[in-house]
Amino acid sequence: MHIDIPAGSDFTLANLPFGIFSTAGTSPRAGIAIGESILDLAALASTGCFDFDASVLSRPVLNDFIALGKPVTNGARAQVRSWVQEGPSPIRPEHLVPMQEARLHLPIRIGDYTDFYSSIEHATNVGRMFRDPDNALLPNWRHLPVGYHGRASSIVVSGEPIRRPCGQLLPQDVQTPVFQPTERLDFELEMAFVIGRDSKLGTPVPVAEAEDYIFGLALFNDWSARDIQKWEYVPLGPFLGKSFASSMAPWIVPLEALQPFRLPGPVQQPRPLEYLRDPDSYRSPANYDVALTAAINDRIVSRSNTRHLYWSMPQQIAHHTSNGCNLRVGDLMASGTISGPDAGSYGSLLELTQNGTTGKFLQDGDTVTLSAHAGEGAARVGFGQVSGRIEPAQ
Amino acid sequence: MHIDIPAGSDFTLANLPFGIFSTAGTSPRAGIAIGESILDLAALASTGCFDFDASVLSRPVLNDFIALGKPVTNGARAQVRSWVQEGPSPIRPEHLVPMQEARLHLPIRIGDYTDFYSSIEHATNVGRMFRDPDNALLPNWRHLPVGYHGRASSIVVSGEPIRRPCGQLLPQDVQTPVFQPTERLDFELEMAFVIGRDSKLGTPVPVAEAEDYIFGLALFNDWSARDIQKWEYVPLGPFLGKSFASSMAPWIVPLEALQPFRLPGPVQQPRPLEYLRDPDSYRSPANYDVALTAAINDRIVSRSNTRHLYWSMPQQIAHHTSNGCNLRVGDLMASGTISGPDAGSYGSLLELTQNGTTGKFLQDGDTVTLSAHAGEGAARVGFGQVSGRIEPAQ
Repeated sequence: MHIDIPAGSDFTLANLPFGIFSTAGTSPRAGIAIGESILDLAALASTGCFDFDASVLSRPVLNDFIALGKPVTNGARAQVRSWVQEGPSPIRPEHLVPMQEARLHLPIRIGDYTDFYSSIEHATNVGRMFRDPDNALLPNWRHLPVGYHGRASSIVVSGEPIRRPCGQLLPQDVQTPVFQPTERLDFELEMAFVIGRDSKLGTPVPVAEAEDYIFGLALFNDWSARDIQKWEYVPLGPFLGKSFASSMAPWIVPLEALQPFRLPGPVQQPRPLEYLRDPDSYRSPANYDVALTAAINDRIVSRSNTRHLYWSMPQQIAHHTSNGCNLRVGDLMASGTISGPDAGSYGSLLELTQNGTTGKFLQDGDTVTLSAHAGEGAARVGFGQVSGRIEPAQ
Repeated sequence: MHIDIPAGSDFTLANLPFGIFSTAGTSPRAGIAIGESILDLAALASTGCFDFDASVLSRPVLNDFIALGKPVTNGARAQVRSWVQEGPSPIRPEHLVPMQEARLHLPIRIGDYTDFYSSIEHATNVGRMFRDPDNALLPNWRHLPVGYHGRASSIVVSGEPIRRPCGQLLPQDVQTPVFQPTERLDFELEMAFVIGRDSKLGTPVPVAEAEDYIFGLALFNDWSARDIQKWEYVPLGPFLGKSFASSMAPWIVPLEALQPFRLPGPVQQPRPLEYLRDPDSYRSPANYDVALTAAINDRIVSRSNTRHLYWSMPQQIAHHTSNGCNLRVGDLMASGTISGPDAGSYGSLLELTQNGTTGKFLQDGDTVTLSAHAGEGAARVGFGQVSGRIEPAQ
């Protein structure tokens, strides 16, 4: 059955990302974005066209579907693609929901959320501003993908409003802290990935097998309150400066859809320890060429690319599990801010405004929208958008 | 119906903690510890004696039961107490399972796990060793309860073996890091609490209302690899030095059972900002007098007490939600290492051995057992134990 896919659409037949949607009076369920429609997988499954237990498609999160494994999830995509391209097809017009009539939900029940710090440009820019311009990178940075545990409960889907947080902070030239709304509210342009397979507690995941554990990727905005963060973060790391909210895009692009855009990562010097090393290369394994933009109120403020990441997803997983820490389906890991080498590619206002000296942090009413895509035309694999509007502090 | 409670038992009728247990061939379900027995709540509920939806008692975690709220959970305890003390009682001998025949499970599905750093003695001891002996406490420490997000997936129940983790670390007097088993494996004597009520994203929980959100407390050991932690933790905080495992006791002692042991916290100087302040006092609100011991291979190495905590649970909750971060039933928060003022009360080997100079870190085969109780005799409210044995690295 033919489905119209407008020119420039993120959601071509090369993509077929998964999400959770509902329409007025119906329950959240699984869908695939195609052009300007959502293919209602729960409704489609009721025709008996899938050869797996399709009850998972009627649940309000994708976890149980994802847990069936890549042969099933990618198999479903291959079937849908063939049903759209060539008859006979079980897809009926009533299985297609106009995207504008749907409400999109957080697509997974997130277990643990980890945020990395894997852009060398971002880490260098931050180190220059806050530490030593001549020794911007800390001694451990080139040896391991630095990361921290983040808060899962406050991750919301794109479109949810973001309330300006209050918090304890130390104003400049003052001796005692105050509690007030943040004055340095920022976005962070990130790409997240969803864990698709459990690993065993006590058993590390080798770097060469790590991609088996990645279900797919989604755009991610790790909102940050820089003044709260600055006062709290020594010695245990970011906490309330981040945990008020993070925004996740509604569509998870399966890793398989990104394979045409795979490319070698940067040369890593010094060469990482063996557990982080691609056995065949001095380069970081498995980067992806995905163009990123960040816009404030529809004005693009940054153009970056996931190819700039120094540490790759397989390295992040290998490091995260190197101590035996286990992964669970639905865990979320994010890249950290993805900055490129030039000023137009910085992924946060902290960097774009040089810590507020050449421009403003986010104002009430501002809407931040992140977008991403790889390829063009019928081969385009887009991530849609993740957006959020700043509401005044309570 | 009479139930035998041996002298010195942790599990008196004043206590009645909740857990999840199973016996050979049966499914995990809810129980209450009484003396040396477990009252099988799922079986008891099948007599129709409870006036709430008792199906929640047959589930493998307590989350849905806890979510019914304190009137229900404390009401169930009051009913059980009266059924044991005075007839008529629906409790039959077959509802009592000898504890030694039961397997105890992780009692909750943990959402987010947060670890605080709320003992001033611990923070001071650590600061003296690793930073400046004359300025051991960092500038923010007396102004806010410092905390960080921890890893939930690797929290295991007491009794699960703890494999010595490998990790990246920088040996002394060496320029490049190595990957090897930790040589500085430590325990941390902590008390955790379980969130019993959801809060709304964007809406802080006032300090005066925070105890409404605490279901109960459980002993907690936040195993730590000090050498991995030291190399990784700047600037984003502890990560793989902690996330290989934490151990939780199987019994959750409801906050209500601890009310007889409530006492004022320490005087806090400087007085905290208003959102962290007990409106009626300069003291930290709502500490508890719970004696703690840590033993290695049955030799007690530390005697501490939760009364030593500088920051209280209500202050931790008020701070955690002050930026709008939401709480969910089943979230876990832990105190951080609870050290007392003298050397015999330090809650970690890091402090007890002065970073390995006066004694050893944990060796393969060592078993660490933490215990806790308040009161004595028929009024005793004990936490049981949380223990773990160190297995060699893989």
